Amino acid sequence: MAGETTITVVGNLTADPELRFTQSGVAVANFTVASTPRTFDRQSNEWRDGEALFLRCTVWRQVAENVAESLTRGTRVIVQGNLRQTSYTTREGEKRTGYELDVTEIGASLTFATAEVTKVSRTNGATRTAVAEDPWASLPSAKPELAAVS
Amino acid sequence: MAGETTITVVGNLTADPELRFTQSGVAVANFTVASTPRTFDRQSNEWRDGEALFLRCTVWRQVAENVAESLTRGTRVIVQGNLRQTSYTTREGEKRTGYELDVTEIGASLTFATAEVTKVSRTNGATRTAVAEDPWASLPSAKPELAAVS
Amino acid sequence: MAGETTITVVGNLTADPELRFTQSGVAVANFTVASTPRTFDRQSNEWRDGEALFLRCTVWRQVAENVAESLTRGTRVIVQGNLRQTSYTTREGEKRTGYELDVTEIGASLTFATAEVTKVSRTNGATRTAVAEDPWASLPSAKPELAAVS
Amino acid sequence: MAGETTITVVGNLTADPELRFTQSGVAVANFTVASTPRTFDRQSNEWRDGEALFLRCTVWRQVAENVAESLTRGTRVIVQGNLRQTSYTTREGEKRTGYELDVTEIGASLTFATAEVTKVSRTNGATRTAVAEDPWASLPSAKPELAAVS
Repeated sequence: MAGETTITVVGNLTADPELRFTQSGVAVANFTVASTPRTFDRQSNEWRDGEALFLRCTVWRQVAENVAESLTRGTRVIVQGNLRQTSYTTREGEKRTGYELDVTEIGASLTFATAEVTKVSRTNGATRTAVAEDPWASLPSAKPELAAVS
Repeated sequence: MAGETTITVVGNLTADPELRFTQSGVAVANFTVASTPRTFDRQSNEWRDGEALFLRCTVWRQVAENVAESLTRGTRVIVQGNLRQTSYTTREGEKRTGYELDVTEIGASLTFATAEVTKVSRTNGATRTAVAEDPWASLPSAKPELAAVS
Repeated sequence: MAGETTITVVGNLTADPELRFTQSGVAVANFTVASTPRTFDRQSNEWRDGEALFLRCTVWRQVAENVAESLTRGTRVIVQGNLRQTSYTTREGEKRTGYELDVTEIGASLTFATAEVTKVSRTNGATRTAVAEDPWASLPSAKPELAAVS
Repeated sequence: MAGETTITVVGNLTADPELRFTQSGVAVANFTVASTPRTFDRQSNEWRDGEALFLRCTVWRQVAENVAESLTRGTRVIVQGNLRQTSYTTREGEKRTGYELDVTEIGASLTFATAEVTKVSRTNGATRTAVAEDPWASLPSAKPELAAVS
């Protein structure tokens, strides 16, 4: 890949991650991160919350399982990924576009928490993810189908 | 500001920038950048265009005027800004959200072009932008109004 | 702050974080992250490790304590911060410059690991960090002194 | 490439770009960008310049020529690239490391300037850059050699 629009988002999960598996057994997790900027108000001399930014995130394979096992609603995370535009059709047949983050890296934030980190044996993950380099490759209609579910 | 979601986008303007002025005389320019990632196809051994990402951008004051004077439809740019979520109501009264980039820096790309750079006298810009530190401050209903126009 | 050069680094800690306290009791942790890019070799059809990038990181207050408690040598992290240039004088009296990351956010990566996240009571942290908004403010000579130690 | 540490820097060229050609005729330009953050001083209620960050940049092929033709000492630019660590040996035989930016995109900033953008015919550039996909590939000892020169 080249020319991707990479972005780092810091925020909190709005709900527990949803973990699913494609027909070929590849794990995929979805979750939404709410990121709230703060503005310093010079009049009142204090910080104020700005408008939150909500970004839906997708993560694959072993990382999806790690995410599902480690994170819950409210957990603060730092996520890096590629911003992607998605198009979909509403039930009324209207075309719409949205934005989504293809996660390349995610971490449990240590700003307000500690984390007990446990390495996952790679062998384990490899067996599962060995199915396909590109999870979509073996999934004729998986992408729209999954998109519809989420 | 703190906790902003900053992003750098590289792409081409989908149309000439639209330049307008708020009632207090502050310049604002809007434009959309289309960013197209490329994937390397190992089978065919060549690069392929991926799905384009479209991001609407807003830029203020002197920079807005510089943008309007320098860029046209198709110009390749590199833009840095804060990703912001916007909410608006359609004519049918439906609530929708979108994403927008509050530009903090923009440059005319030198990847496929040369640029003859001319410094703008700051005095000139200062006179105009001196009107308001926060352009919205003096504009009771400007933000939604402008949003509706664009 | 404005105009900071923000950067997100993904990599592994080269050693356990070093935790220290300033004279006024503010915690500061230092650690180095090694980030190794990979190149896809089209001849051999496999990924190869590139040259590692090493970045020394500094983190403050409660986060410093969380980092020291959660991370050890080898832990993979995702770190966001401001890239800063530092100048120092060697024992031989030679002037040198280096680069350092002022960490704004750090997370324990979930790429190869799971994390058991425990929220730190803010009251606890607040008591300690309440000492000073700007830890240097109460430390006449602290910054150079600490820099010399590290 | 994967796992690169990408960074966007905004600043001014400390000198005119240096343009050279490898033995196989590939253009390479080097320049240094000085980026100065500003801090808002709440006491004095004004912005103050912080410590500048200096980053040496390298850019290749047609872009190198465009850079050399468009930019001069003092020009403000926005640069995106991969942060790379370099090691070199001083004349005294001492080993040192430095940091460098492998530029992937560069633009002439429109913050304080306008730009007259002229598209470069790609055919022209293609002839020259066609020599090698990887400019170093045809240059047995070019990389260290060039590094020594710069």
